[in-house]
Amino acid sequence: MGLLSLFRSKSSSASLAKERLQLVIAHERTNRGSPSYLPMMKQDIVSVIRKYVEIDEDEVQVSMESDENCELLELNITLPQFGAGGTEDNGDIKG
Amino acid sequence: MGLLSLFRSKSSSASLAKERLQLVIAHERTNRGSPSYLPMMKQDIVSVIRKYVEIDEDEVQVSMESDENCELLELNITLPQFGAGGTEDNGDIKG
Repeated sequence: MGLLSLFRSKSSSASLAKERLQLVIAHERTNRGSPSYLPMMKQDIVSVIRKYVEIDEDEVQVSMESDENCELLELNITLPQFGAGGTEDNGDIKG
Repeated sequence: MGLLSLFRSKSSSASLAKERLQLVIAHERTNRGSPSYLPMMKQDIVSVIRKYVEIDEDEVQVSMESDENCELLELNITLPQFGAGGTEDNGDIKG
């Protein structure tokens, strides 16, 4: 319950009726010597999300923090707007 | 910053020096008519996590909440203990 209200309150001030996906992975580690796999896992998780929604690489904000025994990876993804038309343009390929 | 302390404070009271992975996905939806893909996405994400760490299905706690325009999926995974020996047994195949 607490988490839901936290996520809502964090976002409501900034949101302009955009669809968003926010993902937080926290890894509590007892053994700090082991390498962190969160950065690699992040890529795989973004690929999973892509199976379900179209996301633009530019619209993925990543932040990572860590302290003594906890690593935290946060992804904030603004999703493309559907439902208000959904017309896709001519599909320009840039570059 | 706030999130890290939240995750830590949530877990520190309950943790007995166990490794844990906590994953939260929040989906803010503007269009409630669209079906939720979080439950399916959850399965795929658990598969991704399995690529990096061995997890036991029994050690994955899932909770899902939603309100008017936000869906929240939370996974709490207790990871197997390594580093205190790491001897794997004879690899019995059950069944």
